[in-house]
Amino acid sequence: MPKYKAIISYDGTDYHGFQVQLNALTIQEVIEKSLTKLYGRKTRVEPAGRTDAGVHARGQVIGFFAPPVIPEKKIPLALNGVLPGDIVTLDAARVGEHFSPRREAEKKFYSYSIDNSFFPDVFWRRYSWHIPQSLDLQRMKEGAGHLLGKHDFKAFQSTGTFLKSTVRTLFSLEIEQHGSLVRLTYEGSGFLYKMVRNITGTLVEVGLGKREPQELQKILQSKDRQQAGEAAPAAGLCLEKVVYPAEREELKLDWWELMY
Amino acid sequence: MPKYKAIISYDGTDYHGFQVQLNALTIQEVIEKSLTKLYGRKTRVEPAGRTDAGVHARGQVIGFFAPPVIPEKKIPLALNGVLPGDIVTLDAARVGEHFSPRREAEKKFYSYSIDNSFFPDVFWRRYSWHIPQSLDLQRMKEGAGHLLGKHDFKAFQSTGTFLKSTVRTLFSLEIEQHGSLVRLTYEGSGFLYKMVRNITGTLVEVGLGKREPQELQKILQSKDRQQAGEAAPAAGLCLEKVVYPAEREELKLDWWELMY
Repeated sequence: MPKYKAIISYDGTDYHGFQVQLNALTIQEVIEKSLTKLYGRKTRVEPAGRTDAGVHARGQVIGFFAPPVIPEKKIPLALNGVLPGDIVTLDAARVGEHFSPRREAEKKFYSYSIDNSFFPDVFWRRYSWHIPQSLDLQRMKEGAGHLLGKHDFKAFQSTGTFLKSTVRTLFSLEIEQHGSLVRLTYEGSGFLYKMVRNITGTLVEVGLGKREPQELQKILQSKDRQQAGEAAPAAGLCLEKVVYPAEREELKLDWWELMY
Repeated sequence: MPKYKAIISYDGTDYHGFQVQLNALTIQEVIEKSLTKLYGRKTRVEPAGRTDAGVHARGQVIGFFAPPVIPEKKIPLALNGVLPGDIVTLDAARVGEHFSPRREAEKKFYSYSIDNSFFPDVFWRRYSWHIPQSLDLQRMKEGAGHLLGKHDFKAFQSTGTFLKSTVRTLFSLEIEQHGSLVRLTYEGSGFLYKMVRNITGTLVEVGLGKREPQELQKILQSKDRQQAGEAAPAAGLCLEKVVYPAEREELKLDWWELMY
């Protein structure tokens, strides 16, 4: 059976995260039920990254096996027809049967949005962290600079997770202001559990003057979660994009289309 | 008792409009209950304009009587403390006891947002009308040009409403594109029931090539609601700002503060 990958965006506000859970509505469950309905057969999906409760995605990537009854370019429209309004498929393509959205991801982009207006903006409340106090972005940028490159990010990994390696590469961390919105954009080889929210929470403490920018280096070296700041709230986080090596992405087993 | 005006923003998605209704949650009811809780006495509010179910506001203005126990500049923070997250007070000020947010409004600004991307943007779905087809903004702007100035806008008033005069002045109607978002901004002396949504729906038909821009003039002259297009959906509409004559706005009965 052919394998497909699809780019999915979602408003995570009303979901208990991506991964299927007992007695809680998750993104995965809704997508799997929609694919099952669309193809008339039980379909499971694998994501590029599991997002927590309340976290959003503009470019989550999922992989799934399905019969080639719907042309790949028609899959988004067909799938959107059965998905609820807060989950939208943006693209789909045939991939090799061994394609894994998670393992083969080369880079991921996450954004974190802060509503830095005095009173919360009602239209951003689902998608941002409201911080009414003044933030010193220069200090935050200086702090962020200490995190760039290949490091052991263990200090920014939330406890309860056990991974072989906690070394990741942070290619860039941009901090920009658009009106009263402050946006942090993370580009990395991969991210540990709650790493973006833990770094953001720590950088906000730097922006508020509660910590010095150079502390980021010390926290990194400590490899101790207790040294870093509190995790920023889920609502501000969005999985923006997952990048795959171009050649892998194009790999398709076209003989399947002929066989079916 | 002193009178106050307050600027209120709200995400109207989960409400049955502004005005109190039986068995349906409304913005007015929630604000009145919050003010009643805050001041410990039954408080009624009057809005600058009633918004329909699903319509939003960034700058709704309300008027209410309350004892001068909270300094005017502290009212927003105090009121936000009792309001739910989708209704936010942005400002408050003492006004004359005869101040009417509706009658004394000199101008109102409404925006209408269209998500013109092929697949709906999940983060805009609560605040826009998704139109995947290509829109010719030049044609829409040409059509809008016919509506500027003082006219009888009866053809764009939804039926079921009886007003003495249906003459209004449309000072400007700007149509701009920001990425895949198309925004129409209406500046007028006042707006008839569903006027912005009826004009927007008609202009969209012009943008889609279903009507000619010059038809707007004929529709206006016909004074017949049947000639105009369908009303645009509520989600895209937002009451942006209400403008009052400056001198009126500043009028305060300061002796009240001394008396109490």
